[in-house]
Amino acid sequence: MSDIKYVYTFGVGETLGHAGMKDLLGGKGANLAEMTRLGLPVPPGFTVTTEACREYYRLGGRLPDGLVEQVQDAMTQIEHVLGRKFGDTQSPLLVSVRSGSAVSMPGMMDTILNLGLNSETVQGLVKRSNNPRFAYDSYRRFIQMYAEVVSGVRAELLDQIFDGRKQQERVVEDQELSSSALKDICDSFKDQYWRSTATSFPEDPQEQLWGAIGAVFKSWNNKRAREYRALYGIPESLGTAVTVQSMVFGNLGDDSATGVAFTRDPSTGERRFFGEFLVNAQGEDVVAGIRTPRSLTEHDRDPSEAQSLELEMPRSYQELVEAYQKLELHYRDMQDMEFTIEQGRLWLLQTRTGKRTAHAAIRIAVDMVHEGLIDKVTAIRRVQPSQLDQMLHPTFDPQFKQEAKNSGRFLAKGLPASPGAEVGQIVFTADAAVAWASQNKPVILVRAETSPEDIQGMASARGILTVRGGMTSHAAVVARGMGKCCVAGCSALTVDEHAKTLMVGNTILGEGETIAIDGSTGEVFLGTIATMHPQLGTHYQELMQWVDGVRQLRVRANADTPHDSKVARSFGAEGIGLCRTEHMFFSPDRILAVREMILAEDETHRRVALSRILPMQKADFKGIFRAMEGLPVTIRLLDPPLHEFLPSHQEEFDAIASATGKPVEVVQRVTESLRELNPMLGHRGCRLGVTFPEIYETQVEAIIEAACELIRDEGFSIVPEIMIPLIASARELELLREVCQNAVNRTIARMNQPIDVLIGTMIELPRAALTADEVAGHSDFFSFGTNDLTQTTLGLSRDDSARFLPLYVELGLFDNDPFAVIDPAVAQLIRMAVEKGRSKNAKLKIGICGEHGGEPKSIRICNDIGLDYVSCSPYRVPIARLAAAHAAIGTTGLAADV
Amino acid sequence: MSDIKYVYTFGVGETLGHAGMKDLLGGKGANLAEMTRLGLPVPPGFTVTTEACREYYRLGGRLPDGLVEQVQDAMTQIEHVLGRKFGDTQSPLLVSVRSGSAVSMPGMMDTILNLGLNSETVQGLVKRSNNPRFAYDSYRRFIQMYAEVVSGVRAELLDQIFDGRKQQERVVEDQELSSSALKDICDSFKDQYWRSTATSFPEDPQEQLWGAIGAVFKSWNNKRAREYRALYGIPESLGTAVTVQSMVFGNLGDDSATGVAFTRDPSTGERRFFGEFLVNAQGEDVVAGIRTPRSLTEHDRDPSEAQSLELEMPRSYQELVEAYQKLELHYRDMQDMEFTIEQGRLWLLQTRTGKRTAHAAIRIAVDMVHEGLIDKVTAIRRVQPSQLDQMLHPTFDPQFKQEAKNSGRFLAKGLPASPGAEVGQIVFTADAAVAWASQNKPVILVRAETSPEDIQGMASARGILTVRGGMTSHAAVVARGMGKCCVAGCSALTVDEHAKTLMVGNTILGEGETIAIDGSTGEVFLGTIATMHPQLGTHYQELMQWVDGVRQLRVRANADTPHDSKVARSFGAEGIGLCRTEHMFFSPDRILAVREMILAEDETHRRVALSRILPMQKADFKGIFRAMEGLPVTIRLLDPPLHEFLPSHQEEFDAIASATGKPVEVVQRVTESLRELNPMLGHRGCRLGVTFPEIYETQVEAIIEAACELIRDEGFSIVPEIMIPLIASARELELLREVCQNAVNRTIARMNQPIDVLIGTMIELPRAALTADEVAGHSDFFSFGTNDLTQTTLGLSRDDSARFLPLYVELGLFDNDPFAVIDPAVAQLIRMAVEKGRSKNAKLKIGICGEHGGEPKSIRICNDIGLDYVSCSPYRVPIARLAAAHAAIGTTGLAADV
Repeated sequence: MSDIKYVYTFGVGETLGHAGMKDLLGGKGANLAEMTRLGLPVPPGFTVTTEACREYYRLGGRLPDGLVEQVQDAMTQIEHVLGRKFGDTQSPLLVSVRSGSAVSMPGMMDTILNLGLNSETVQGLVKRSNNPRFAYDSYRRFIQMYAEVVSGVRAELLDQIFDGRKQQERVVEDQELSSSALKDICDSFKDQYWRSTATSFPEDPQEQLWGAIGAVFKSWNNKRAREYRALYGIPESLGTAVTVQSMVFGNLGDDSATGVAFTRDPSTGERRFFGEFLVNAQGEDVVAGIRTPRSLTEHDRDPSEAQSLELEMPRSYQELVEAYQKLELHYRDMQDMEFTIEQGRLWLLQTRTGKRTAHAAIRIAVDMVHEGLIDKVTAIRRVQPSQLDQMLHPTFDPQFKQEAKNSGRFLAKGLPASPGAEVGQIVFTADAAVAWASQNKPVILVRAETSPEDIQGMASARGILTVRGGMTSHAAVVARGMGKCCVAGCSALTVDEHAKTLMVGNTILGEGETIAIDGSTGEVFLGTIATMHPQLGTHYQELMQWVDGVRQLRVRANADTPHDSKVARSFGAEGIGLCRTEHMFFSPDRILAVREMILAEDETHRRVALSRILPMQKADFKGIFRAMEGLPVTIRLLDPPLHEFLPSHQEEFDAIASATGKPVEVVQRVTESLRELNPMLGHRGCRLGVTFPEIYETQVEAIIEAACELIRDEGFSIVPEIMIPLIASARELELLREVCQNAVNRTIARMNQPIDVLIGTMIELPRAALTADEVAGHSDFFSFGTNDLTQTTLGLSRDDSARFLPLYVELGLFDNDPFAVIDPAVAQLIRMAVEKGRSKNAKLKIGICGEHGGEPKSIRICNDIGLDYVSCSPYRVPIARLAAAHAAIGTTGLAADV
Repeated sequence: MSDIKYVYTFGVGETLGHAGMKDLLGGKGANLAEMTRLGLPVPPGFTVTTEACREYYRLGGRLPDGLVEQVQDAMTQIEHVLGRKFGDTQSPLLVSVRSGSAVSMPGMMDTILNLGLNSETVQGLVKRSNNPRFAYDSYRRFIQMYAEVVSGVRAELLDQIFDGRKQQERVVEDQELSSSALKDICDSFKDQYWRSTATSFPEDPQEQLWGAIGAVFKSWNNKRAREYRALYGIPESLGTAVTVQSMVFGNLGDDSATGVAFTRDPSTGERRFFGEFLVNAQGEDVVAGIRTPRSLTEHDRDPSEAQSLELEMPRSYQELVEAYQKLELHYRDMQDMEFTIEQGRLWLLQTRTGKRTAHAAIRIAVDMVHEGLIDKVTAIRRVQPSQLDQMLHPTFDPQFKQEAKNSGRFLAKGLPASPGAEVGQIVFTADAAVAWASQNKPVILVRAETSPEDIQGMASARGILTVRGGMTSHAAVVARGMGKCCVAGCSALTVDEHAKTLMVGNTILGEGETIAIDGSTGEVFLGTIATMHPQLGTHYQELMQWVDGVRQLRVRANADTPHDSKVARSFGAEGIGLCRTEHMFFSPDRILAVREMILAEDETHRRVALSRILPMQKADFKGIFRAMEGLPVTIRLLDPPLHEFLPSHQEEFDAIASATGKPVEVVQRVTESLRELNPMLGHRGCRLGVTFPEIYETQVEAIIEAACELIRDEGFSIVPEIMIPLIASARELELLREVCQNAVNRTIARMNQPIDVLIGTMIELPRAALTADEVAGHSDFFSFGTNDLTQTTLGLSRDDSARFLPLYVELGLFDNDPFAVIDPAVAQLIRMAVEKGRSKNAKLKIGICGEHGGEPKSIRICNDIGLDYVSCSPYRVPIARLAAAHAAIGTTGLAADV
């Protein structure tokens, strides 16, 4: 016999397990042991270790030596303590069997209750409870669970028997069935078991117990669990524990009850005991919602409700209050407990860290710091960056959303491209969006996909819904930048822009019909749903102060307008990491000059057109510098291919022709000649600067004039950061840096106002990363454009990947959507570029301005590589601040108070 | 005074310079010294070292200490030897001044002849020559050269004076001008010099000499020379030498002559003395082609010619023969010499390695090995891989091509995308190409750009001409694969496919008009030009045997059909490195089944369509395996996005609808839904295999059935190499390898024929290279797809880069067109992937199958990184074999005979 200890008891003899043993006992077993050690009333039981499971697999599915003896020994101890015997016909011991690994996992075996019942021991239960109906209902439930979970009998076969009998008895509710009917059902279940498995239902409680333990072990390796582990990188070798616990019953009469309790309000975070219970019920009844549970406290009780537990069972309530106080103080976090009162006696069946809303998470964390329960670092850890998202945008009222689902108004699900929840009328073109919005109509812009021409329409719409495109498609990126709700890549929709119809299955919607879109979940509904607008509070402000004290990464925003800059600053942005100058080009008063510039036949004409754009850009820059006074602003020179500024429809060609005075054939010919097969890899970014240096010169002049005027006239202190996009080779940057520096010098001389300027580049092509040492020789800063870097490193178009990327993530070919979370290979390039860059230029400032800059896992990567800052859309700035703090804590292991 | 020796004399005193001192004396100076040391008659002179030039720049444009004295000392020695004096009015010493760096370079200063003449010394020349016309013509030439080259007087100003005088004298030829007219011209030139430079033309020979030396120094740093050095990576610090040499005159009467001679025939390589001369002429007259030169030997003399030098001046001829024999034996290579006979005395003015045709290069190299002059490795070094190209394709007869240019038939120049020269009638669609070719009309397919739909048309055409696209655009790649002449990216053209017109400037050409295209130069001509079809000979075969003995890289071919495979094998291919299966899909008898497959509504229907394609693919594979019997064949599974197989015109939609029995709306909708913004980065390559594994399964079945049948029925020995394209992550390959292996196993079982199979991947995305260790865990081989790897690493679409890439190369932003020569950053990724891949899988076979596989510099990179093989289009196989040998020699320093 082996010396290895495979079984840890709790509530009998010395309890050796504790909360720190989750790896060996699973979360459930470890917490049950811990509660026992705290002296709380826990029904006695034991946990078979994960090590036994691992050994079981090592032995090819055989039980390890000593396990049977250790289990029997534990059972004997329980029998002794409770004065009941397993398999005894007079006073039978009944147990529950549950799986429990260190990480909870779908696909693992469910609970089996009432194990130990058979046609003889059930008589003992009848006697003990003096309630034959209860006893046979317990037996019926056991057979059903065991048959389904252990032996794989199809659930619907048993449901048919049960429902058939109910019909036969003409009853509606389960509890209306008589004990004899339930006894018959038990027999029918056993018949079905025999037909399904060709074996008899086990009468021997020992056989039942080992069947259940074996089923837990096997469930560790079923398909769903394996896939889940592969997906989340959980080691195969972990194994699962099995917890066997003596049964207690909340349904033994009106002196029995069962319920759940939270040590604080999980929805507001308020510090008060909160929970629900049912008299004469089993735990699953509370969850199932068949009967309406009652409040634990009088304070919470609704006038229409029956009295609270506080008054109904004051002694048990008092015991429960003491238990919750002890548990919260012990775990120093809000607990979610399950309890049962069996004939007046309180038993605790589970405790775990309670789930909570974002608001509650923040309030609980901050309160607990003030109460001296936790330190500030722990408080920061307690709030997940992703939780903040729901606080920063409107959401649908969950109740009304559920109603919409129930009433069949759910239409389709796309990608949750930009959070928020909006209701509006469908329009199919940007022009219509602008027109309808100007009449104060709320509109949702629905497009197959958006393009830069749609910017004004997007700005006018409440929300955006597209058929194609992924998480970093044009629609998604622009919408997030605007803080506007967007559902992208909703491929179940068919949009016909000419017919102005939107088709989903058999539903056809026309212009003006109302839909509701949830950018946080990707859901699309017909009709309206009420929204809620959460408020940031003082707890939030206090937490974020601590956050800012901990983090090492600076957080900037991607903002293109004075308005966005102000929003970003209000969310705590410490500068602008990416100001895209091209978005300024699309407003109706400018696009004509931009098009004239593109259609110009030579440099001279191009300069004339550019000179008309300069004052407009300058005004934008002044507004942005003003909004960001005292903070750094990085401005990217023109990036998109010129054809993005030209139209695609005949009417528009005509309009441009008449506006510019050029023959329509010329407009068409230029447009055609600029067309590209792969515009993403085409004539864009710094390649425009190389072929048309006058464009970059003009933009630099506008930046420097704006900054100089604010310095000279208003005493600002500004060091503009000019960023050159899409650099592939150091020599490109060398050339363009000279072009920009010359333009800076000329402008300084003209304005007679000295000014310092930084000139740097985006690293968004693998070549730039691979040659970053050379590039750094001509650069004051690097900013990783991870959208494009991901596209090129993976050879993956963000706009075209919707057809296969979801399948890729599902099959685990990528751990994450690489446009959401920085891909490991992209991270490798970033790390290489940072090392090479700093080796050549120690003063290099390094940041990231791709969409990943606002995503917590990616921020962790940026922190670990040692970037100076991340930059993200304004509405993600708080998330990024918190994620940066989490990353800093993770990296430094910083634990002391701050 | 400095001790540094800045001046090396030759022909006076001891000659210290020699051929090994090119860095210090320049190529010209070093060879003059060498000839002097060999005892050959060289007019005495001296060379100012490159070190003096470097010192001149270091001192900010001042002559280094000691230089003036050393030059004066050398001049004195020359005066002494020749018995003439510099500036002497009786017997003046005249000299030439030439620049000469180690590397010849455009923009550097030209020769100045007759330096030392002024209004007084010219009288000495009159006396000495007894020929006033000669003396004043020499003076006129000197003033002209000095004014233009040293002082920057505009050439046309002097030409006007000269031509004006000729008109005034009513003469046509220069030599008809009298000595007094030439004297007047000298005066007019000096007047113009004064007007242009505000200084008098220097009379003092010393001032002339230092003006010329300074001009040479300065020309090192002029704009054109600097740009050239930047472009070719020639160090700034090299500097130029200056060679000053006493003048000899071939135009002193009928006992004087000048000429050029080759030690072997530079056009055929035949071992015979060959050259041309003119009696009573200066060197530049031979080159200028104003008078028709005569043959050196009687053997070469045309009956209509005057007698040869051999008979005309037998003594000098004999001296020349002795000199040539001495020089060739000394240099062990064919020499190109310049000589002058001055009043019966032979002088050698230059010797250098002679330029030669590809045929001559091969014959000379092979002959010299047999003659014992050089070893085989040296012979291999003597033939440039790029030279082979002209031997493998038809070329335009240079004489007729020049005539076409002279008669204004040159239309435009595009990229030399696929070598060869073809004449044909213009067609604008693939269908027309097929139709016309079937009537035996020679056609040139002219397209804005080609797409896979055009394959049949391209196969039917003699040549292809496109407006858009670079060196690796679809047209270029496919044409090279077919060995078909192609000019791509000819952006001066405008093609209107609907109107069926081709516009170049003001010329409009219609369907059926004849053009001639030169795929080796990119030139396009109107009308016909006669072509020449060179033959490979026994010298070629012998050299290539030596080549194959030296190289380490194997050379395979990219071939998609049995025919291409046979061609490749005949050129020495050692297998197929890339067989693209999609090209097989486009033939008219298959495309319908392919389209049915794409339009299939589910997997079942897709499998039905695929089952119709299988036997056709199988037949292809059998043909290819047969052609490559005994050699490895790598077959790539389907790569392009499916929309490439669908049409874009309405008529075609209708045709497909009626052929497949599907509503035309469905055809259009599927086509529209497959449209991609960046197809290069879209749903293609292994992503098709992941979403539609049945496509890959069917292809694998076809491959294995074909191989098994040949093994079973014909005793072949085949190990098919199945290649999965566009892998980004190891898990993709793991999944698809399983799909393929299962299909292999099923087929083996069905055929009852065991067979070994290799399954590997292309490395064509940066992510695959960065994670190559993981990828290698699932791969038997790697093949670098450098076309796509270049596109993604540089973020550069090969199809869209024509608008800026030429400017990039011109500005030196890239050293080379990265689609022609492997970019350094791409090489870095390849090296990383090879190291990572081999670290995980030591048996990994590694090759390259991008277009770079046939380009010599890239082959050198592949050799140095340690790849196993390169694969290129069939017509480049000999080039690749030779380049691989060059690379192996370069790497190992192997010098012994082989």
